[in-house]
Amino acid sequence: MKHVVIHDPTLRDGQHAVRHRLGSTAMRRYAEAADAARIPVVEVGHGNGLGASSLQVGPAAVSDDEMLSTVREALRHSRMGVFMLPGWGTSDDLRRAVAHGADVVRIGVHASEVSLAERHLGFLRDAGAEAHCVLMMSHMPSPGELAEQAALAVAYGAQAVGIMDSAGHFLPADVTARIGAITAAVGSVPVIFHGHNNLGMAVANSVAAADAGARIVDGCARGFGAGAGNTQLEVLVPVLERSGFTTGIDLYALLDAADLAERELMPAPPVTASMSIVSGLAGVFSGFKHRVVELSDAAGVDPRDVFFELGRRQAIAGQEDLIVDVVAELSGSKADG
Amino acid sequence: MKHVVIHDPTLRDGQHAVRHRLGSTAMRRYAEAADAARIPVVEVGHGNGLGASSLQVGPAAVSDDEMLSTVREALRHSRMGVFMLPGWGTSDDLRRAVAHGADVVRIGVHASEVSLAERHLGFLRDAGAEAHCVLMMSHMPSPGELAEQAALAVAYGAQAVGIMDSAGHFLPADVTARIGAITAAVGSVPVIFHGHNNLGMAVANSVAAADAGARIVDGCARGFGAGAGNTQLEVLVPVLERSGFTTGIDLYALLDAADLAERELMPAPPVTASMSIVSGLAGVFSGFKHRVVELSDAAGVDPRDVFFELGRRQAIAGQEDLIVDVVAELSGSKADG
Repeated sequence: MKHVVIHDPTLRDGQHAVRHRLGSTAMRRYAEAADAARIPVVEVGHGNGLGASSLQVGPAAVSDDEMLSTVREALRHSRMGVFMLPGWGTSDDLRRAVAHGADVVRIGVHASEVSLAERHLGFLRDAGAEAHCVLMMSHMPSPGELAEQAALAVAYGAQAVGIMDSAGHFLPADVTARIGAITAAVGSVPVIFHGHNNLGMAVANSVAAADAGARIVDGCARGFGAGAGNTQLEVLVPVLERSGFTTGIDLYALLDAADLAERELMPAPPVTASMSIVSGLAGVFSGFKHRVVELSDAAGVDPRDVFFELGRRQAIAGQEDLIVDVVAELSGSKADG
Repeated sequence: MKHVVIHDPTLRDGQHAVRHRLGSTAMRRYAEAADAARIPVVEVGHGNGLGASSLQVGPAAVSDDEMLSTVREALRHSRMGVFMLPGWGTSDDLRRAVAHGADVVRIGVHASEVSLAERHLGFLRDAGAEAHCVLMMSHMPSPGELAEQAALAVAYGAQAVGIMDSAGHFLPADVTARIGAITAAVGSVPVIFHGHNNLGMAVANSVAAADAGARIVDGCARGFGAGAGNTQLEVLVPVLERSGFTTGIDLYALLDAADLAERELMPAPPVTASMSIVSGLAGVFSGFKHRVVELSDAAGVDPRDVFFELGRRQAIAGQEDLIVDVVAELSGSKADG
């Protein structure tokens, strides 16, 4: 039996579904339940990670310091994880997180920009935290390019490296190819997979990842996350176990933690709505949704056409200006036609 | 490109999620939207099929006659489907459905009891409707036994035959084995797959079915159905198309139909709750849930233990007495311990 380490970003990635407004009490209660289920890593933070709380992406209800000390206190067995996007967070944020007892620290970068993680991975290796590097929007580069980036991350000091299906675009064969290429490139370094459910494939993709060699797989209670949500943790675990992997997690306590999460963290579990399906098919960051719908409605164009055109242009986060361009062009071509 | 015929039981299997209380106006509006999307078959009825409206399983809001004439009127392109469980429905019900213009008539039987469909399949073949036979709780027999039952159904006159994953228990490899065995046994007769989402695998299982030769695949708008719900139709269609199959369905109109279904048919889309995961893992008919929880709570035993024990005893619908036995035994062994 091969072992998979489950990494639970419910209290970080789930924040996107509630505009980063999770409170301390709810976080503590979920962390205690996750700990009781023996979930190996419980990740906490603003949705966009350390240092990201701001007017631009939304202020968190609770400061990084308070989140980290709250969750740290709640965990007796589970390790604490944090996430940081270089640019949003800084070396100072990392230093404080490690001082708060963060055991696992993930640096997230766009899938072709792993060099942005170099300095941080080096710092973490020296600071004694387990340093992960995750490549986001990983459907955009080829498997070979991903493998090169992953090998670079390891050279910078990453002790685990892997991919996020940030747009929820993958089908299982896509995951098999990418995890297989990365696994071949990084030898014994654990490989990470983090899925999203836009095409109903989050659990199947995660099993495909484990089959292809991934040894750290992410899931959130009830799939808590923006839009179609993440891989549903309490489904993932028993399905991995039925597929020949061990996780060390107590199933009943896991189900209890998920029930608690549904009651105390979320207004309602994620739904795979039509626009999430379109953004997954188009391979576009789902965070664009609000702006795409708003601008499309104002211009009288179909937001689905806008998503597919953004996908053709390989739009990524930070390129919100492209939405304006695409809407204007589609609106113009409609008027011409 | 291979073609898959999409069969949409939103207005029949979805009824289980609303205690069979869909009204005529909502049915008509969904049928019109499904028709506009060019969904090949729109199935309608009480959740348990023709003739099943009763105090025992719940009375439908609308009579079979009214449902059939309402949906018939709404369809210009799509064919109309109905479903019948022998015992709930009778030959008279079939006769009236055919007279109302039902094009596709499905007879559902427990996976080892296809002989119960013999008379009805013969009648339908003579009446000129397309006769389908679906084997329910299809995780219980072996692939070889399912193939034998499927071949018998064809000998009785079925023009399509296949399986329902009634307990939501399958993983993709399970589906591949069963659809493969049935396909090999029935030659050119179209094979059907109908999934449930208890383990988050409904879409992946449906693609596995198509890859293994299934040519009729079921899906419901937003997965509308009891518990964890059915395969989400508007996800299934584009994922099948990305996987190399044609469906002939208009994606945008399909997404519109699903949006309408969410607004007008359901209080909320299905959620994969903890008890649905347990019933899927245990391989137990999810319709047992209410009674299992009620009796377990009264006796102070864990309903999850009851589900797993019912699974070990291969409980099937109609064997609700087993729930009482299992609860009493677990309650006794708890008192003893």
